[in-house]
Amino acid sequence: MKVDSKVLQLFGRKVRMLRKQKGLSQEELAHRADLHRTYIGMIERAEKNITLINIEKVANALEITLEQLFKNEKK
Amino acid sequence: MKVDSKVLQLFGRKVRMLRKQKGLSQEELAHRADLHRTYIGMIERAEKNITLINIEKVANALEITLEQLFKNEKK
Repeated sequence: MKVDSKVLQLFGRKVRMLRKQKGLSQEELAHRADLHRTYIGMIERAEKNITLINIEKVANALEITLEQLFKNEKK
Repeated sequence: MKVDSKVLQLFGRKVRMLRKQKGLSQEELAHRADLHRTYIGMIERAEKNITLINIEKVANALEITLEQLFKNEKK
Protein backbone atom coordinates (compact mmCIF):
# COMPACT_ATOMS: atom_id res chain seq x y z
CA MET A 1 0.00 0.00 0.00
CA LYS A 2 2.73 2.40 -0.92
CA VAL A 3 1.48 5.91 -1.51
CA ASP A 4 3.68 8.67 -2.80
CA SER A 5 3.44 11.56 -5.20
CA LYS A 6 3.13 9.15 -8.11
CA VAL A 7 -0.64 9.52 -7.96
CA LEU A 8 -0.21 13.29 -8.28
CA GLN A 9 2.11 12.82 -11.27
CA LEU A 10 -0.33 10.49 -13.02
CA PHE A 11 -3.19 12.86 -12.30
CA GLY A 12 -1.25 15.88 -13.55
CA ARG A 13 -0.27 14.13 -16.77
CA LYS A 14 -3.85 13.04 -17.32
CA VAL A 15 -5.18 16.57 -16.83
CA ARG A 16 -2.59 17.97 -19.23
CA MET A 17 -3.38 15.32 -21.83
CA LEU A 18 -7.14 15.86 -21.60
CA ARG A 19 -6.74 19.65 -21.62
CA LYS A 20 -4.67 19.50 -24.80
CA GLN A 21 -7.11 17.05 -26.39
CA LYS A 22 -9.77 19.70 -25.91
CA GLY A 23 -7.47 22.36 -27.33
CA LEU A 24 -7.55 24.39 -24.12
CA SER A 25 -4.76 26.53 -22.69
CA GLN A 26 -4.06 26.43 -18.96
CA GLU A 27 -5.70 29.86 -18.78
CA GLU A 28 -8.85 28.61 -20.47
CA LEU A 29 -9.09 25.50 -18.31
CA ALA A 30 -8.49 27.60 -15.20
CA HIS A 31 -11.23 30.01 -16.21
CA ARG A 32 -13.71 27.18 -16.86
CA ALA A 33 -12.84 25.54 -13.53
CA ASP A 34 -12.85 28.80 -11.58
CA LEU A 35 -9.28 28.10 -10.48
CA HIS A 36 -6.12 30.15 -10.96
CA ARG A 37 -3.94 29.53 -14.01
CA THR A 38 -0.86 29.00 -11.84
CA TYR A 39 -2.81 26.43 -9.84
CA ILE A 40 -3.56 24.42 -13.00
CA GLY A 41 0.15 24.54 -13.82
CA MET A 42 1.02 23.27 -10.36
CA ILE A 43 -1.50 20.44 -10.65
CA GLU A 44 -0.12 19.39 -14.03
CA ARG A 45 3.41 19.39 -12.59
CA ALA A 46 2.28 17.40 -9.52
CA GLU A 47 3.30 20.22 -7.20
CA LYS A 48 -0.04 20.36 -5.38
CA ASN A 49 -1.99 17.70 -3.51
CA ILE A 50 -5.32 18.62 -5.06
CA THR A 51 -8.53 18.28 -3.04
CA LEU A 52 -11.66 16.43 -4.13
CA ILE A 53 -13.67 19.62 -4.61
CA ASN A 54 -11.02 20.97 -6.97
CA ILE A 55 -10.70 17.62 -8.73
CA GLU A 56 -14.41 17.87 -9.49
CA LYS A 57 -13.98 21.45 -10.76
CA VAL A 58 -11.29 20.23 -13.15
CA ALA A 59 -13.45 17.29 -14.28
CA ASN A 60 -16.40 19.61 -14.91
CA ALA A 61 -14.17 22.02 -16.82
CA LEU A 62 -12.97 19.10 -18.97
CA GLU A 63 -16.60 17.96 -19.35
CA ILE A 64 -15.91 14.45 -18.05
CA THR A 65 -16.90 12.44 -14.99
CA LEU A 66 -14.59 11.72 -12.08
CA GLU A 67 -14.61 8.10 -13.17
CA GLN A 68 -13.37 9.08 -16.62
CA LEU A 69 -10.74 11.37 -15.14
CA PHE A 70 -9.27 8.44 -13.20
CA LYS A 71 -9.65 5.88 -15.96
CA ASN A 72 -6.56 3.77 -16.69
CA GLU A 73 -4.59 5.29 -13.89
CA LYS A 74 -1.81 2.89 -13.04
CA LYS A 75 -0.80 2.47 -9.43
CA MET B 1 -20.53 23.72 -13.64
CA LYS B 2 -21.88 23.92 -10.13
CA VAL B 3 -19.56 22.50 -7.54
CA ASP B 4 -20.53 22.14 -3.90
CA SER B 5 -20.05 19.66 -1.13
CA LYS B 6 -22.25 17.15 -2.94
CA VAL B 7 -19.13 15.52 -4.33
CA LEU B 8 -17.87 15.07 -0.78
CA GLN B 9 -21.20 13.58 0.29
CA LEU B 10 -21.21 11.12 -2.61
CA PHE B 11 -17.62 10.19 -1.92
CA GLY B 12 -18.26 9.70 1.80
CA ARG B 13 -21.27 7.50 1.16
CA LYS B 14 -19.31 5.44 -1.35
CA VAL B 15 -16.44 4.92 1.08
CA ARG B 16 -18.86 3.88 3.84
CA MET B 17 -20.66 1.47 1.53
CA LEU B 18 -17.44 -0.12 0.26
CA ARG B 19 -16.00 -0.31 3.78
CA LYS B 20 -19.09 -2.13 5.05
CA GLN B 21 -19.09 -4.42 2.02
CA LYS B 22 -15.62 -5.51 3.08
CA GLY B 23 -16.77 -5.93 6.66
CA LEU B 24 -14.31 -3.35 7.95
CA SER B 25 -14.79 -1.00 10.88
CA GLN B 26 -13.68 2.62 10.58
CA GLU B 27 -10.75 1.68 12.83
CA GLU B 28 -9.71 -1.16 10.54
CA LEU B 29 -9.97 0.93 7.39
CA ALA B 30 -8.04 3.75 9.05
CA HIS B 31 -5.30 1.35 10.09
CA ARG B 32 -5.03 -0.09 6.58
CA ALA B 33 -4.95 3.39 5.05
CA ASP B 34 -2.53 4.79 7.64
CA LEU B 35 -5.07 7.49 8.47
CA HIS B 36 -6.75 8.35 11.77
CA ARG B 37 -10.08 6.74 12.66
CA THR B 38 -11.67 10.13 13.28
CA TYR B 39 -10.47 11.23 9.83
CA ILE B 40 -12.28 8.29 8.19
CA GLY B 41 -15.41 9.29 10.09
CA MET B 42 -15.10 12.85 8.87
CA ILE B 43 -14.64 11.69 5.28
CA GLU B 44 -17.70 9.46 5.46
CA ARG B 45 -19.73 12.37 6.87
CA ALA B 46 -18.40 14.73 4.15
CA GLU B 47 -16.82 16.99 6.75
CA LYS B 48 -13.39 17.02 5.10
CA ASN B 49 -12.29 18.01 1.61
CA ILE B 50 -10.03 14.99 1.14
CA THR B 51 -6.84 15.31 -0.91
CA LEU B 52 -5.81 13.08 -3.79
CA ILE B 53 -3.01 11.41 -1.81
CA ASN B 54 -5.47 10.44 0.92
CA ILE B 55 -8.07 9.36 -1.65
CA GLU B 56 -5.48 6.95 -2.99
CA LYS B 57 -4.71 5.68 0.52
CA VAL B 58 -8.42 4.95 1.01
CA ALA B 59 -8.66 3.23 -2.39
CA ASN B 60 -5.62 1.09 -1.59
CA ALA B 61 -7.06 0.21 1.81
CA LEU B 62 -10.31 -0.84 0.10
CA GLU B 63 -8.27 -2.76 -2.49
CA ILE B 64 -9.82 -0.95 -5.45
CA THR B 65 -8.61 1.48 -8.09
CA LEU B 66 -9.39 5.19 -8.11
CA GLU B 67 -11.55 4.58 -11.15
CA GLN B 68 -13.61 2.01 -9.24
CA LEU B 69 -13.87 4.31 -6.25
CA PHE B 70 -15.45 7.00 -8.45
CA LYS B 71 -17.61 4.65 -10.47
CA ASN B 72 -21.27 5.63 -10.83
CA GLU B 73 -20.79 8.90 -9.00
CA LYS B 74 -23.64 11.14 -9.97
CA LYS B 75 -22.97 14.81 -10.43
